[in-house]
Amino acid sequence: MDTGMDIRNIGLRGVVVASTNIGDVDGSVGRLVYRGYLIKDLAGKASFEEVVHLLLNEILPDRDQLRAFSAQLAAERTVPPELIAALKTRPKNALPMDVLQACVSMLAHHDPEADDPSREASHRKAIRLVAKLATVVAAWERIRNGQEPLDPDPNLSHAANFLYMMKGEVPDDDIAGFFDAALVMHAEHGFNASTFAAREIASTRAHMYAAVAGAVGSLSGELHGGANTRVMEMLIEIGSPDRVESYVKEQFDQGQRIMGLGHAVYKVDDPRALILAPMSKVVGERFGDTKWYEMSALLEKIAKEEFKKRKGRDIFTNVDFYSASLYYMMGIPMDQYTPIFAIARVAGWTTHIIEEQFAEAAPKPMLYRPESDYVGEYCGPEVCEFVALDDR
Amino acid sequence: MDTGMDIRNIGLRGVVVASTNIGDVDGSVGRLVYRGYLIKDLAGKASFEEVVHLLLNEILPDRDQLRAFSAQLAAERTVPPELIAALKTRPKNALPMDVLQACVSMLAHHDPEADDPSREASHRKAIRLVAKLATVVAAWERIRNGQEPLDPDPNLSHAANFLYMMKGEVPDDDIAGFFDAALVMHAEHGFNASTFAAREIASTRAHMYAAVAGAVGSLSGELHGGANTRVMEMLIEIGSPDRVESYVKEQFDQGQRIMGLGHAVYKVDDPRALILAPMSKVVGERFGDTKWYEMSALLEKIAKEEFKKRKGRDIFTNVDFYSASLYYMMGIPMDQYTPIFAIARVAGWTTHIIEEQFAEAAPKPMLYRPESDYVGEYCGPEVCEFVALDDR
Repeated sequence: MDTGMDIRNIGLRGVVVASTNIGDVDGSVGRLVYRGYLIKDLAGKASFEEVVHLLLNEILPDRDQLRAFSAQLAAERTVPPELIAALKTRPKNALPMDVLQACVSMLAHHDPEADDPSREASHRKAIRLVAKLATVVAAWERIRNGQEPLDPDPNLSHAANFLYMMKGEVPDDDIAGFFDAALVMHAEHGFNASTFAAREIASTRAHMYAAVAGAVGSLSGELHGGANTRVMEMLIEIGSPDRVESYVKEQFDQGQRIMGLGHAVYKVDDPRALILAPMSKVVGERFGDTKWYEMSALLEKIAKEEFKKRKGRDIFTNVDFYSASLYYMMGIPMDQYTPIFAIARVAGWTTHIIEEQFAEAAPKPMLYRPESDYVGEYCGPEVCEFVALDDR
Repeated sequence: MDTGMDIRNIGLRGVVVASTNIGDVDGSVGRLVYRGYLIKDLAGKASFEEVVHLLLNEILPDRDQLRAFSAQLAAERTVPPELIAALKTRPKNALPMDVLQACVSMLAHHDPEADDPSREASHRKAIRLVAKLATVVAAWERIRNGQEPLDPDPNLSHAANFLYMMKGEVPDDDIAGFFDAALVMHAEHGFNASTFAAREIASTRAHMYAAVAGAVGSLSGELHGGANTRVMEMLIEIGSPDRVESYVKEQFDQGQRIMGLGHAVYKVDDPRALILAPMSKVVGERFGDTKWYEMSALLEKIAKEEFKKRKGRDIFTNVDFYSASLYYMMGIPMDQYTPIFAIARVAGWTTHIIEEQFAEAAPKPMLYRPESDYVGEYCGPEVCEFVALDDR
């Protein structure tokens, strides 16, 4: 029996498990960088394709590099017809994250390089996964609604093409731009739970699809990516601005959390929330319906005040808080918000998997195999005496 | 930038991440217990059904309890026809672990309780997963060989029924018994990489199928469950006992590991290897072909001596070393060894997920969210200055 339980290790908070040169989250000052660049310099200024290039190739591309890279991504958007056939066997009420997880595993079945451990193959698989996950999410949206999936349009950006494949019409540049910025803000976030799951799985030398499928599973939880759907459900449940205050007090009275508030890492404003809030406002104005933005802003204000009053400390909105109303106004079904998070974060997952597989820096990663503190005492301090079935 | 990198955290070796009362692995003395019972008292003495009951319900069942529990498991063995239809869309050369991972996610699509967070629903999902994973693995074996899957036979034990569904004939009691013991020995092993992945995913409040799919991914890696397939590939590559010595020396000369030797936790004999080795011998004698057992035993002997000579310390065989030849002699295809590991370990995964979800002991688990040490210095110690695309 181990006796080394250290309460500080619970949830691995503050436990440094690896070196990385992909990104940095400094929760104490609200700083998020991808390969050295601040998120506020990237979101809305560099496209999702540029950011995927930055993550995977470690530099922001110039025009020629971006043209070639975008073409490579666009060429990988199609998925095999057998995968569409498999999707058509799925019950229409299946949860989109569960469908996405199955599809990640199924994409491996069609990739002759699935099990190729070389760095070059891993890089190609990363591009395939980033390109195809968007197609899969859009295809399921149409199939579950009894529609045929649409072929990707290689002339559209990744963001615009996804909205086109999902909704059947090409978005205008403004909407595509906001959606692109949302993808950029969700692309990478250090050793969050899903990325850590991906690295943990890759550490056994499992291949990239196996690891990304695990990450999709981790993201689906409501304490992680699942929160954006819950935020919108909450806003709809509240219904109108005049009910915000009573809702907040009721939740806190019952010791319940408010979805979209608080973060495992940020102790100040989440820099992504600061960018998303004005985007949600602008998109609301654009569609002539700022109700959801206003409710969100009011909820933020009241919840912060109430939290401060009760707990004596501050709480801040996180990335899920304003992305919910943004996606809602774009007409995206609520249970697709977390899959949309996934089609962005897959850029970070695959980059981290490659780092886990091929890290050159010391100390090198190794298979994650923690210890536990055995507290079972079924038969006293000694092991139990086995009694055969007939004598039980 | 964090500066807290502690080399001792690499791979989380020795880092205690949670309390558990499911099982204990004491690598220093080679002791493995499930709920207080030594593995040597369980393997071959208690059936897989008894052990699943022990894990999930915390006690070894009496006759009546076992009868009810076995009936419950047997009733859950069938899988929906839509899942078989989906399997038939899969390329025949898909890797069985990749197919299994997709099926775990797809089983969620058919379970109306998939997203039910109650303890009772989790318990039912655990029983479903234990029951159905065996059916899925056997079904894929037949489908990829152009055969129709066989319906499970509720009158057979879990072990015998799996072999029947996979091979089309009911095994005799001896073979079923050895296979049952192998399942028991693979059912649980503390915070190994796949179980940790399952718990990590469940910690976000993702549901049980999402977490088990991640665990399947983690198990597929050759540093984890994938090793048993690699052991058999190695034995076949060596080909005959007279080549064992040169193979061992060659591997060590090249700084290569020998599959099935060494373990992240055991510093003495793996207690499961001590049980599997004589089983491999008896099954070999039974089929009149002890070649693979003898090669394994010789490889173990020479590798241990050679390792001691070169490194000055001991190395031991692990669970994968003798299970490989055992499964081979039972006529199971090599790339199904790891899926067989999975159909046993799913008992441990699901038990751990329930513990993660409903732990009553303090400290309570929380979302796993470790830190990393950011070592990227792309633009010197400061963040990079962003340059727009047109100016790059």
